[in-house]
Parts: sequence; C-alpha cells; structure tokens
Amino acid sequence: MTTTSQIPTPALLLDRAKLEANAAFMTARAKALGVKLRPHMKTAKSADVARIATAGNFGGITVSTLAEARYFAQHGFKDVTYAVGLAPAKIEEALSLASRGARLNVLIDHPEQAQQLVAKAAGQDDSPLGVLIEVDCGDGRGGVLPDAPWLVELAKYVNGRPGVLFAGVLTHAGHSYACRSVDEIAKVAEAERGAVVAAAKRIRDAGIACDTVSVGSTPTATHARQLDGVTEMRPGVYMFGDLDQAGLGSLPEDRIAVSVLASVIGVYPDRILVDAGGLALSKDISAQRHNPQVGYGKVAGLRGAYVVKANQEHGIIQADDPAALNGVKVGDRLRILPNHVCMTAAAHPGYYVVNGTKVLERWPRINGWEQWPDATRKTK
Amino acid sequence: MTTTSQIPTPALLLDRAKLEANAAFMTARAKALGVKLRPHMKTAKSADVARIATAGNFGGITVSTLAEARYFAQHGFKDVTYAVGLAPAKIEEALSLASRGARLNVLIDHPEQAQQLVAKAAGQDDSPLGVLIEVDCGDGRGGVLPDAPWLVELAKYVNGRPGVLFAGVLTHAGHSYACRSVDEIAKVAEAERGAVVAAAKRIRDAGIACDTVSVGSTPTATHARQLDGVTEMRPGVYMFGDLDQAGLGSLPEDRIAVSVLASVIGVYPDRILVDAGGLALSKDISAQRHNPQVGYGKVAGLRGAYVVKANQEHGIIQADDPAALNGVKVGDRLRILPNHVCMTAAAHPGYYVVNGTKVLERWPRINGWEQWPDATRKTK
Repeated sequence: MTTTSQIPTPALLLDRAKLEANAAFMTARAKALGVKLRPHMKTAKSADVARIATAGNFGGITVSTLAEARYFAQHGFKDVTYAVGLAPAKIEEALSLASRGARLNVLIDHPEQAQQLVAKAAGQDDSPLGVLIEVDCGDGRGGVLPDAPWLVELAKYVNGRPGVLFAGVLTHAGHSYACRSVDEIAKVAEAERGAVVAAAKRIRDAGIACDTVSVGSTPTATHARQLDGVTEMRPGVYMFGDLDQAGLGSLPEDRIAVSVLASVIGVYPDRILVDAGGLALSKDISAQRHNPQVGYGKVAGLRGAYVVKANQEHGIIQADDPAALNGVKVGDRLRILPNHVCMTAAAHPGYYVVNGTKVLERWPRINGWEQWPDATRKTK
Repeated sequence: MTTTSQIPTPALLLDRAKLEANAAFMTARAKALGVKLRPHMKTAKSADVARIATAGNFGGITVSTLAEARYFAQHGFKDVTYAVGLAPAKIEEALSLASRGARLNVLIDHPEQAQQLVAKAAGQDDSPLGVLIEVDCGDGRGGVLPDAPWLVELAKYVNGRPGVLFAGVLTHAGHSYACRSVDEIAKVAEAERGAVVAAAKRIRDAGIACDTVSVGSTPTATHARQLDGVTEMRPGVYMFGDLDQAGLGSLPEDRIAVSVLASVIGVYPDRILVDAGGLALSKDISAQRHNPQVGYGKVAGLRGAYVVKANQEHGIIQADDPAALNGVKVGDRLRILPNHVCMTAAAHPGYYVVNGTKVLERWPRINGWEQWPDATRKTK
C-alpha cells in the first residue's frame, strides 16, 4: 500500500471522506430548498469527483470550459451547462458537442452572441444547443440586468429557431464572496433569487417558456433561506472547501478536503522552507481578507503556521509562535490548506485520493483549454 | 497560414523577435561582465526557448524541478543545475538522472541533506552528481550565511566522496525584486556577488576547489556593475519579461515577449469581459507595486486598460478613460501583458509563437512535477 510519505512532492491530496461529506451536505441542502443540484465542476475538473457530487441528484453538471464539456461528455455526463459567456469563436465547437448526443447549454447576454449563434446553428436540426440568458444579479461581471429591455428581446430572438433551444435564465452571485457575515450572504442569496425569478417572469409574460431558473455560488447555496421560483443551483467549491470558504462560513475548516503535500527542504532559526511555492499553491490571497496572516496557505497540524511567502518553487513557512516549528526536520512532509482551492488544484495534473496517510487512488484532472502535444514526447 | 484570429482562446503568445532580442541582450551582458550565462529555464520550460537562450553561450542551463531536468536532458542539454534545495526523497531520481550521462548539479544547505546524499550516492561511481552549496546573500529564503561555520563543514563533508562532486557555491538575490531603483538593484547585485565570492574564498582557504561561483536574478544580472570572482549567472525571466520586470527597470515594456490572447465575451457600459481570468493570467499581483491600477494585467494597445478583476475564467477590463474601450466588440481579441510571466506561462500547455498576428509554430512546455495519465484517455 502506498502512503503519503512515498509520493513525489509537491502533490495534491484529496481526502475522500471529507469530499463525500461535503457532497452529501450540498445534496441535502438542494433537497431542503426544493431545487435540483447541478454541481459546478470547475473546481474539481474530475469525472471521479463528479460521480460523487451527482450521486443522489439528477445527474446534470456545470462546467467552465469547453475542454471540460468535452471530457465530461466522454465520461457519460449527458446534461452539461457551460456557464461562461460564449465567445463567438467557440460556437462551432459547442454545436459539435451538442450534436454528439449530450445536452449542452450555453450562456449569452448580448445580441452579437445571439445573432452569430442562431446563424451557425441553423444547419443543426437534431440535438439542439440549449441557450440560457445570463442575468446580472448585482455581481457586475456578466449578464443583462433583470429589467433591461433586451432581456426579453434576446429570448424572443432565440426562441423557436432551428438548432437552438431557449432554455431559461442563469445568474451567479459572485459578490457573495465579499460578504462579511452569514446574514449578509443570505441577503445576497435573496437578491440572486429575486433577479432570476424576475427575469424568468418577464420572459414568460412575453409568452416564452423559461424552464430553467438557475442560481449558484457556494456561499449563497449554503446560506439561502429559500429559493422559491428557482429550479436549480450550481455551487462548486463546496466539494473541497478552502480557507476562503471557511472564513466565509461555508464549511468548518476541518471539512477542507484538499491540501498540498510538501517536503521540507530547509530549516532555519526563524523559518522553514518547503518545495511547494507559488506554482503548487497559486498566488491567490483571497483568504487574507479573513486572516491577514494566512499568506499563501495554512499548515495543517502546526499551530499558527502559515506560508508567509511563495516564490515559484519555494514556500517559506513561519509561525506566530516560532516554537510551533521546533522539531520540524529536512525531509518531513507537511500538508498545506489552500486559500482558494479552484486556483490551487488547477496547478496539478490530478489528485492523490487519501484516507489519512493511505493513498487510495489517483484521479486525473482536465486542466486547461485545449489538447496539446505532450512536451516529453517531442524531440527535435 | 494560421493567424491569431484563428486559434482557441485563452492562449499564450510568444513573440519570437522579442524573445531573440531579450536573449541577445543577456548574452551580451554576460560577456561584458566576464561570466558564463546559465539561463534559468523555470520561466520558459521549453527546449525550443532554451536553444535560443543558450545560443552563443556555453550550453549549460538552470531548472527548478526534476521534471524539467529530465525533459531538458532528453532534449540534449548536458549541463543542468537544479537550483532548488534538494528534498531527501528526490535524491534517488537526481542520481538516476546523473547516471544517464548529463551533468546534473543539485543544491544543499543542511547537514541532513549532505548526509543522505552522500549515503545514497556511494554506489554511483560513474557520472557523479554535482553538489553546490546554497548561500544566503540577504534574501532570507534558502542558503547558509557566507560566514556560517557549517558552510566549510558542508564542503568538507561532501568533497572527495564517491558518487558526488563538490562543485561550488550558488546564491540568488531574490530580494532584488523588492528594489525601487536601478541604484538599489546595483547595490543588491554587489551584495549578491560579495556573498558568494566570500563563501568561495572560505572554502578554498580550507583547501577545497570551488569551481562554480554562481549568482542569479534578472534584475541583478541586468544592473550589476561588476561580477569579479563570479563564474556564472542564472537569470530566467529576462527571456520573456513582464510588467513587474518592466517596473523594476529590467527591460522596456515593449520588449515583453509573452502575452495572453483573450476573446471578448461581454461588453457593458462600464467594462468589458474576456475569457482569460485567474487561471489564464494567474492571481499574481506583483506588478501592482509599480502601478496599483494594473490589476491582473495590462491590455496591449488599449490605452490605460487593465484587467481589474480576475475570476476563474473571466477577466473584467476597465480603462482609466472609459472611451478607450469604445468600439470593442464581442468576439474581438485582445492581448494581455502579464504581471509575472513565470506564473502566467505555467497555466498554459505551451506557446503560440508569433510574428505580429502570424502564428509560426507551437512550442510545448514542461509544466508540473511528474508525469500523469492523460485525463482524456481515462474512461471508466
């Protein structure tokens, strides 16, 4: 049996029991709120994780790239929403994916996207591409405002055209990440709900069916008080959790399922050095909002010890009480909890799935945006 | 012929002419300073780039992972320094790489590393592994202080043992990145030089040969006034440049060779949205020291326009003068200059090598730390 003392470092560890507990929590939340759970796979990017996240749910998922859409379709996921505004240059690939039998929904918020999509989809009679209109519920990223005139115009323009199927409305309360309390998150969740429900009503009032009314974000999914009128939610980071989500109150720190395993490569009077730096941890500092000391990650099991500086392949660890580092030796292995696991996980090709120090399996990730030749196979 | 309007986005672009100019600049600097150039390939992670960086030089390179060491050896690079403190668990792989005929140097600064290395190397008679002692020149990351008692003890312990070859001393002035002026960088460069030269003298005074006296960092290599007593320098980021290096005075902004090509996916009264976010750009904010407005990158060709916010797959662009964004349409393509190119490039599988809008070639990168099964080939 392989243990975590035997694998190369830096490495991404995934605690299977915590993942399962987090998945079960959100499945129960969706049922309690009376909505479907369409988990966002942008964080995990793994079919193995998706099987756990969809267990007990209807099977639909959300993705953030067409590379994910392609990969998850290959792995048997038949209902996929690509929840990033569609670039015109990606329309043909999206149509091609839809024509292979999996239901794919794409996101638009601009007449230019609608026109190009409708023009290119005209030849696609079977397997229409689902189209959702993105609604801005206050995040100020993408989407039309729920009272914008062109919301209904967009739905009218798409509805009934060959090769496409108008599917509904979708929003993302990204501004929930800036909240400072559970009450504040619950208010953002209510604004998120209100925006898409209002948008759906305007479209239905114009005589157009609007089957999907979709919200999403781990903080709002965790703390929404009700989701009346909503049909589905799309949280993602809850599967793993991270220091930022723990700070936001989405889950307790002991349910963070992912960590970076690092080897100690230097021991000095005031610090230790590990082989996990900015590339293995990411340079995301979001969790510093909750705890300015957190740096680039928190060392599990060493009280008050943080990665205070991250160079490309070096992490410098210091502790509030330097005595916490006493006894750490060159060659020791430490687990570092990530600030923002979506960023951290993306630096790694996959997960070492663990139960304590036992390595159970390796699960690969679908990183990036397109397939490339393997660098190690190219020799000039 | 392929153009940048035809490739998938987000994509990493590499301007070949700028790369060549940057490589020629540093080759000339090394000659003027009378030292060898051992370019650090941690930024580029590409044999194609390494051939350009080593042209006109002795052919040695520096790497930051054993994955790079393995890859560059496969591609014919015969003299490689792995310039991150050696984790004991990596000793066997380093010995195995050295036994395949390429010269490999590793870095130690602690008796624990020396003992484990010497014990494991004893069986390796041919192709000894080169050993450098890391010296701390004021950066406070890794290394022994030049006047530390165990500097000479480490050299004595390694020198003459079977399977290893004591090669010299190495330092990195990482603190040059915090400088605010060229004068300040020149002072750090002189401290960097002074530290390794002093360390080498102490070792030689103990009767031990110390062939290599190695310094490195792009700012100090660019602005050092003299490198007497030094044998080689190991800058890396100079090949590409980035907004942080431009702010530090390492190169003018118009010589930044790498950018991220992004598609516009949303246009709003106060902002535009592109399909390059935190994953494609990285969350590194180092360039904000020089210009707090820079956010996560600067849009080339749009005056005063920056990526002010980066979510996973979304970049939000705003401009000092909103009129700079007039005329930008959904589907347009923009180039974003990176804050810190080492982090940005690592998010991509390789480079689209360009001359203007012409795509000349694709060059893969050797990312990560170990080989994994390809996610797209695994079907359960």
